[in-house]
Amino acid sequence: MPISTPLTALLGIHHPILSAPMHRIAGARLVTAVSKAGGFGILGGGYGERAWLEQETSTLKQSASPFGIGFITWSLAKQPELLDIALHAKPRAIMLSFGDPAPFAPRIKAAGSLLICQVQSEDMASQALDAGADILVAQGTEAGGHGASRTTLDIAPAIVDLAAGRVPVVAAGGIADGRGLVAMMMLGAAGALIGTRFYASVECDAPDKAKQRICAATGGDTARGVLFDWSRRIFWPAPFTLRALVNDHARRWSGREAELIQNMDAVVADYASAQAAGNFDIAGVFAGTAAGLIHDVPPASEIVERIVSEAEQIVHGRRNSAMLGQAAS
Amino acid sequence: MPISTPLTALLGIHHPILSAPMHRIAGARLVTAVSKAGGFGILGGGYGERAWLEQETSTLKQSASPFGIGFITWSLAKQPELLDIALHAKPRAIMLSFGDPAPFAPRIKAAGSLLICQVQSEDMASQALDAGADILVAQGTEAGGHGASRTTLDIAPAIVDLAAGRVPVVAAGGIADGRGLVAMMMLGAAGALIGTRFYASVECDAPDKAKQRICAATGGDTARGVLFDWSRRIFWPAPFTLRALVNDHARRWSGREAELIQNMDAVVADYASAQAAGNFDIAGVFAGTAAGLIHDVPPASEIVERIVSEAEQIVHGRRNSAMLGQAAS
Repeated sequence: MPISTPLTALLGIHHPILSAPMHRIAGARLVTAVSKAGGFGILGGGYGERAWLEQETSTLKQSASPFGIGFITWSLAKQPELLDIALHAKPRAIMLSFGDPAPFAPRIKAAGSLLICQVQSEDMASQALDAGADILVAQGTEAGGHGASRTTLDIAPAIVDLAAGRVPVVAAGGIADGRGLVAMMMLGAAGALIGTRFYASVECDAPDKAKQRICAATGGDTARGVLFDWSRRIFWPAPFTLRALVNDHARRWSGREAELIQNMDAVVADYASAQAAGNFDIAGVFAGTAAGLIHDVPPASEIVERIVSEAEQIVHGRRNSAMLGQAAS
Repeated sequence: MPISTPLTALLGIHHPILSAPMHRIAGARLVTAVSKAGGFGILGGGYGERAWLEQETSTLKQSASPFGIGFITWSLAKQPELLDIALHAKPRAIMLSFGDPAPFAPRIKAAGSLLICQVQSEDMASQALDAGADILVAQGTEAGGHGASRTTLDIAPAIVDLAAGRVPVVAAGGIADGRGLVAMMMLGAAGALIGTRFYASVECDAPDKAKQRICAATGGDTARGVLFDWSRRIFWPAPFTLRALVNDHARRWSGREAELIQNMDAVVADYASAQAAGNFDIAGVFAGTAAGLIHDVPPASEIVERIVSEAEQIVHGRRNSAMLGQAAS
C-alpha cells in the first residue's frame, strides 16, 4: 500500500520520493523512470545549457506521469529565458536551489506549475516562503554536489518547525533507503529528495565507471569543498560548496586551494581532459555520504520499489521490531 | 508504556536514553536524576580529575539505579589508576571515547561492568568490537564537545550495518527530542545518547548563563574546530575536534589558529579568567546542533519524560499521522 503524505497529494504521486535534479546526469531518461515508478523525477537543468534543455524537455513533454525541472537559481538569473523552455514542457513543478527564488516565482505560478525551493538555513526557508514556495526541500550537508554545512538531522526538523504545516517539507542529504525515508518522516518531513542513490541507477546519464566508484565508497570517502568547482573555473557564491568522492585530484589539492588558483589554467585544462576521457582519478564524482549505503546499479524503478518496500516493512513492524513491535504491543 | 530495545534489556533501564558524559558538568547530580527517571546517566569523568572523581563516585555508589562512568580514553591512558576509582563505585557500565579501549577492557569486564565504546568511523567500531565492547555509540558531527566530521545520518546506519546485531548501537549527535529518538531507531539504533539537551537541565553542573545561551541558539550557531581546546592548551589527537556555540572568542580566532598559537600564553590566560568569571563571550559553551531544538531548562526527569512521551505519540500514530496513520490504515 502506498505511503500517503501531504507531498504525495500535492504532487499527485504514489510515493514520497523525489529524485534530485543532478546537473546533466538527471536527464529525461532518469526522470521518466522515477516518475513512472510512482516517484517524482526532477530534470537536472543545472547551469542551463539551452540545446540540452530543449532536447530533454521535448521528451518529457510527452510524459504521462508528473515530473519536475530543477535549476541553479543564481545561474538561471543569468539566462532567465531558459525558464520559458522549461515551463513549455508543462512540468508539475519547478525546483529552484541556491539563490533568491522571488524573481521567478510569478512566472512559474502563472504557468500553473508548483514552486519547490531547496534551502539550507532558516533564513533561506523564510525567503522561499515569502516568495510563495509550495514545497520546501531542507538539504543537509550530507548531500552530493552543491550544498552547505548544516546536517540533515539539524536542518530538517528546524525547517519543519519553521514551516509549521504551511507547506510540506522534504528532507535531502544522506538518504538512500527505506530506513532513511522513514527516519526523515519521523522528524516531520513529508518525503525525501534522493540524489546519489539514483546516480547509481541504470538510467542515470553518467559513465558506469563513476557509478561503480559510488558502489565502492563509504560515507567517509566523500568530502565537501571548492576544489572541483575551481577545477572547472566555476565560482559559487557563499555558503555553497560541493561534496564529491575523494579521489587523487582531491587528495592532491585539498588544503592547497591558493596554489590551485595560481596554476588554474593548467589545472582546468587537465581536469577537462580527464572529464572527457572518463578518468575519475581526476574528474569528480559528485556523490553524497549515502554512497556508503549503495552497493549496486539497478534500474531506477527497482530503487523506488526497494525504498518503498523497506519503509513499509519498518512502519508495519516487520523490521526494527525492537521499537515498533514492542512499543505498540 | 516503555519503549523496550536490546539496549534497555542489557542495561536494565526503562527508557533507551543515555545522558552523555559531559566533562565535569555531568556530575553525580545529573547522572542520578537521569537514572532515577528511567534513563541511564553517565558521569563525565573527562580528563580525570582525581578529587572530583572520588567525590562524585562516592555519591553515585549509593545510587539505587544503574549508572555509567565515562572517560576520554587517551587521557585515561595517562592515569590508568582512575579506572579503579570508577570501578569501585560499581557502575553498570564504563563508557570509553576517543582512543583504543583494548588496554582497559579486561579490567572493566573483570569488575562486572559493561563496556560502552563511542566511535566515529567503521574502523573505530571494528577496533571496539575486537576489544569486546558490549554497546557501541555511533557519534555524528552534530554532537557538542569532542567528535569527528561524519554526520549522524551517515555514521549511525553504517555502524548498525557493521555491528550486524552483535551488540546494540546507540546513536549520538543532534538528538534532543522524541522525534529524533524515533528517527534514530528507524535507522536501526537501539537508543540515543543525548548531551546538549541535558546540558540545559536543572541538574547539570554548568552556570545558568551557559544554559541560557543554548536556549537562544540555533544549530547554525554552533561550529566545530580546535579553538576552544587550544585556548586551554589542550591538544587532541586527530581526527577529533570540538563543537561549541559560536561566541565572540570563536569569531575572533576562527581561521587565525596560527596566530592564536603565536599568542598562546596571553590567549590561555584570558580564557582562564573568562571561564572563572563565567564570561561566555570568551569561555566556550560546548553544545551541539541540537541547541536549535532546546528552549528551556527543565529538570532532567522532565526531559526524559518529554522525549519518551513524544516518541510514544509518534510510534502510536498520534503524531506525524501523515506517515504512520495512513500507511498503517
